[in-house]
This record gives sequence, C-alpha cells and structure tokens, in this order.
Amino acid sequence: MEHKAPIKITLVGSGNWGSAIAYIVGRNARKHDDDFDIEVRMWVHEEIINGKKLTEIINKQHENVKYLPGKKLPSNVIAVADLVTACGDSDILVFVTPHQFVENVCTQLKGRLKKGALAISLIKGFLIDKKEGTICLVSETIRELLNIDVAVLMGANVAQDVANEEFAEATIGYKGRKEMWPILKKLFETDNFRINLTEDSYTVELCGGLKNIVACAAGFADGLGYGGNTKAAIIRLGLLEIIIFVELFYHCSNIRTYFESCGIADLITSCTSGRNRKICEAFVKTRKSIKDLEREMLNGQSVQGPMTAEAVFIMLKKHDMLSRFPLFVVVHQICRKELSPSLLIECLRQCENKLPDN
Amino acid sequence: MEHKAPIKITLVGSGNWGSAIAYIVGRNARKHDDDFDIEVRMWVHEEIINGKKLTEIINKQHENVKYLPGKKLPSNVIAVADLVTACGDSDILVFVTPHQFVENVCTQLKGRLKKGALAISLIKGFLIDKKEGTICLVSETIRELLNIDVAVLMGANVAQDVANEEFAEATIGYKGRKEMWPILKKLFETDNFRINLTEDSYTVELCGGLKNIVACAAGFADGLGYGGNTKAAIIRLGLLEIIIFVELFYHCSNIRTYFESCGIADLITSCTSGRNRKICEAFVKTRKSIKDLEREMLNGQSVQGPMTAEAVFIMLKKHDMLSRFPLFVVVHQICRKELSPSLLIECLRQCENKLPDN
Repeated sequence: MEHKAPIKITLVGSGNWGSAIAYIVGRNARKHDDDFDIEVRMWVHEEIINGKKLTEIINKQHENVKYLPGKKLPSNVIAVADLVTACGDSDILVFVTPHQFVENVCTQLKGRLKKGALAISLIKGFLIDKKEGTICLVSETIRELLNIDVAVLMGANVAQDVANEEFAEATIGYKGRKEMWPILKKLFETDNFRINLTEDSYTVELCGGLKNIVACAAGFADGLGYGGNTKAAIIRLGLLEIIIFVELFYHCSNIRTYFESCGIADLITSCTSGRNRKICEAFVKTRKSIKDLEREMLNGQSVQGPMTAEAVFIMLKKHDMLSRFPLFVVVHQICRKELSPSLLIECLRQCENKLPDN
Repeated sequence: MEHKAPIKITLVGSGNWGSAIAYIVGRNARKHDDDFDIEVRMWVHEEIINGKKLTEIINKQHENVKYLPGKKLPSNVIAVADLVTACGDSDILVFVTPHQFVENVCTQLKGRLKKGALAISLIKGFLIDKKEGTICLVSETIRELLNIDVAVLMGANVAQDVANEEFAEATIGYKGRKEMWPILKKLFETDNFRINLTEDSYTVELCGGLKNIVACAAGFADGLGYGGNTKAAIIRLGLLEIIIFVELFYHCSNIRTYFESCGIADLITSCTSGRNRKICEAFVKTRKSIKDLEREMLNGQSVQGPMTAEAVFIMLKKHDMLSRFPLFVVVHQICRKELSPSLLIECLRQCENKLPDN
C-alpha cells in the first residue's frame, strides 16, 4: 500500500479566535490521523505573562491564558514562537491573525513555504490599499504575496461560543483544487461546528467584511431607539447593498451563497449582538467619537465597521457610485460626524429595495 | 373627460393591527382622492366600553380606545358595526381580523359583495382544515368562500411601531390583475411604510405563517441559554426548511421572494423579539405548558407557532416527509412535551444545510 504523507497543519495566529479554532483543529487532527499529522503547530507572537513566555505556558499548561483563559487546548497543539519554523513545512496554513499583521507575516514567509501549500483565511474584514484608500481582500493579499492557493472560512462565529462548543455553522469558500474539499471539511467540522463548502470564495469573504457596515447602521438604529421593524428593514436593505456591491465590483454574486452561514446568519448576529453594533449604539447615545469609544469600551482595539465604511466610500466615490449605496454611504458620513444619526431613516428611503435582476 | 368612480375601501377588522393599518389607509385615501373614496369604512365587532359603543367612540373621538389607545385615527375612517353594510359596495376589502374569524366573516359576506371586488389579507398564520388537520392559507379560504381575487400583505411589521410611524417595510403578493399593483401601492405605501409587490403570493403568505415555527425554536434556544451562533444557525436552518416546504407543497418558491420584507426581515424580527419566541423561552425556563403561559403572559390569546407546528407535522406525516423537516418536527414535539428542549441541538444536526437545487 502506498504511504501518503500526513498533512501538516499550522495555525498562523493565536488570539481569541485562533485559540478557539486550535481547539477544533487540534482535536480533528488527532481524530483523523490517517490524513493529518497529529502535531498541529500554532504560531504565537511571543509575550511574557507574569515572567513566563506565553509559548511555554501554552506548551506546559495547554491553555492560552491570555486570549482564551479557562479552556484547555488539545495537547497536540504546539506553540511555536518563530514564524518560519512554525510554517515552513506545513501543507495547510490557517491564517487567523489580526488583519493588520497579514502583510508583515506574508512578507516574512515569502519563498519559505512548502510547494503546494494551501492557506485558509479566517480573518474577517478587509485590508486597506494605502495608496488608493480602497479595500483589498485578505485572501487576495495572501495569494499575491505568497503565490499560493487561498481558501476562506467565514460565518456566524463568536469565538468564545465556538470554544464552548455551542452549536454553530461556518462556510468555507474555495475555488481551487476540488480534492481539497473533503480535507478542509475534516479539518474544521465537528458535531457542533458544521461546515458547508462553496466555490464562491469572494462572496464568502466579502460578506464577512461588508456586514460590519450594516452592523453599524443597526447600532445607530438601536441608539436612536427604533424597534424591530426598522432594524429588520436595515438588515434587509443592507444585505441588498452587499449583494449589489459584490456583483458590481467582483462579478461573482451567486445568490445561493447568501443563504450560507457567511451570509444572512453572520449578518444577523452582527446586527443583533457584535461590537460594531454596540459601539455605534453608544456613539449615538453619548455623542463621543468612535476613537474615544474604542478606547473606553474595547481597550483601544478598533472596530472594523467604520474603517470598512470609509474604504468602501472611497471606492464608490472613485467609481461615481455613491448614489447606489445610500446605506453604506450614510454609515461613513455618520461615523465621521458629517451627518447627524437622525438622518439615517431619510437615507434608508433612498435604498434600492429590490434584489437586482441577474 | 371620463369620470372614474372612486375606489371604495373597507377594513374588515379593527384590532391592534387593523387600527394601525386604518391610520395608514385612511390618510392615503385622503391623499390620493383622485383614486379613492375618501370615506374608509372599518368593520368593528361591536363592544361596549364603559357603557359606550366602540363604534360610537371611534366615530366621535377618532380613536380605537380598546385596541390602539393614544393614537388618533384619520377622521375619514368610519366605524361600522354591520359587516354587510361595511363591505357590500366596496372595491377593496382589507382583511385584518384574527384568523379564527375569517370563515365566519366570509360566510356572512358570501354573495353580497360588489362584482370585481378585491380582498387583501393582512392576516398572518394559517387556518387549520378541521377534517384533515393540515394548514389552509387564509387567502385560499377567502378566495374559495367568496370567489374573489385575493392579495396578501406581509412583512416585518409590529403594529404599534407602524402606528408610531417608525420606518418599516412590507411585501404585497398578488398574482391577479397587474393594473391593480399601482392602486395597492398607493393605498398602503407611506414614507415610513415602504411596499414591494411580487406575483409570488403563496410564498409571501407562507413565510408569514411558517416563520412562527422557527421563532419557537429560537425561543427554546434562548431559554436554554445559547448565544448568537446557535440562534443565527436556527434562523438560517429554519429559513431553509421554509424554502423546502414551500417548494414541495406549493411549487412556487421563487428564491428572490425570501429577500423581501416578508422573508428574511419578518423572520429575523420574529426570532429576536415576537411573542412566539417569548412564550417558548418561558416554556423552557418554567416548564409550564404553552396553554398556561398563554394565560399568564398573553391574557389567554394564543400564539400561532405551536398550532402551526402541529398542523405542519400532520401534513408532513401524511406525506411521509417528517425526516426532511427536523426543525419543524422538533418544535412540535417539544411544544407537546414529547421531547425535551435539550434535544433541540441534536435535531439541528439532522437539518438540510444547503439550499435545495432548483
């Protein structure tokens, strides 16, 4: 019988979401040890916690005490501080760093990866093209910098709840080698984390970023005290703008993809809970700036919605398409304090309220 | 110039939703008096309130003190206690009674309506075929009993918020005379109540009824303490069962209709607020029966979800299709206390998680 080399996995990142996914991937690698190398490496940006290295704590206590405290990681997940050591001979690289580290990580890995390696990005949100001010997909950036195949995994996934094994779903978008589909499914799926796969990778990723703009609008509505009718209308009109945007700029809107977890499900969660919604509700109620609220409410971490709204605004302006996206535009203008939140409804009335013909 | 007779409107019903709609329709009839007879009649099931007739109170004070207190109705909305007097010469009958009165109302109106009259049903939820135990659409029942054209209006519409002129949307489904579309739009649309029309009338109506089953599942999840991931998965999987059900039993599922207010928007509102959700959350937490909770929480009014789940269960059983609808089935079994709510997740794992091919 031919010996098939086990597939080596590395998690590129070890924050809250990275650690939750390490829990799943670690157990699946062990469960399917016919396919996978049992040792799953996790690249950890080294930190000193109470005088000890975070990598050592993780490898001894099997717990990421900083980013997912209280949850034991499988003992076959091995923390590695050196990026190239962690990734160099891996077959599948699970990207789960904060989005602002992606370019730096890729630059370090360039030319040092195994031939045929596959990346899968779990990073929601976009990068910003600094010169143009427009959005770049994380998957595109990885592909361009590393010249490898890239899949994405998105969905209605609050990290802590996934780590607690609450029932959740996710969508993998991957247009490349079809023979990798069952492998990716085996790597991520559990009884409480159900995976669907689609080829419509761009739509999957775009949903994960654009929904943050809609969540801001939902937060404004909450701050203004509107009820369920208005919130539901915002979610629906926001979804229509997402669909129109994806179709116009990426020519890939397969309507079926919006019925996946990455589509309506993630949008609903973001608009009913989620930190973009929360910050934007507080923005209306307190009249403080987004920056101040991030400092007060999120220890200075930034929310993606306002940034994304700005980059999308720049794109739309450049293409003379501001008038087709009143919801996206008004979120940007309200965040910038160029418009009063009370004008939100006025703008909703301008929204396209029908699915575009296809 | 040819004189076109003004279109006469009657509201068949005067509860909370009926009165909220009377507010809109009354103002629109006055605004578009080229098209409509200014006098809008509202059939009121006569009651005595503090020694006075409700019709007299409404016609003097222009307020439905019982069902929409605190909101002035337009003075051109005239309450009429006699059903046939209210409806006999009307061109458009807006049905907005509780669903259990529909058959009785239609029986009284049979043969006494103007030729060419159009009904539009705003009644969410189904009637139950007493012999078979299966669901009947309200629109079908009206059509069969009165032999007239029937449209439906559904959407994410909490009555009180619509009366308060909060921004909301609704969907009209009507397959009949296309020349009636602009008339129906004029009758219902305002700056804060936006209307879309579609021919896919059955889907519009079925969404309005079936979403109540999904809202029950969402309520169970809330009662069990699950977070946003699970709730979003339930809404998504529930929507897929709605789509499969509509396709199987009514052969009319146009995927675009689910992007209307009657589809995702109404489903979201029902699963995040809404009384089916609320009762079912309490059901899990208190272990009381649905009947007892209706008495305690809703003054004995019944919620539609458990009834609908039962009728759908009977239909599915008859067609040997229980296994294709695990979510619908588990809601019925939990409501009947045949299954423990804690088995909800077990059942979600059996759900079809892809949109059916078409």
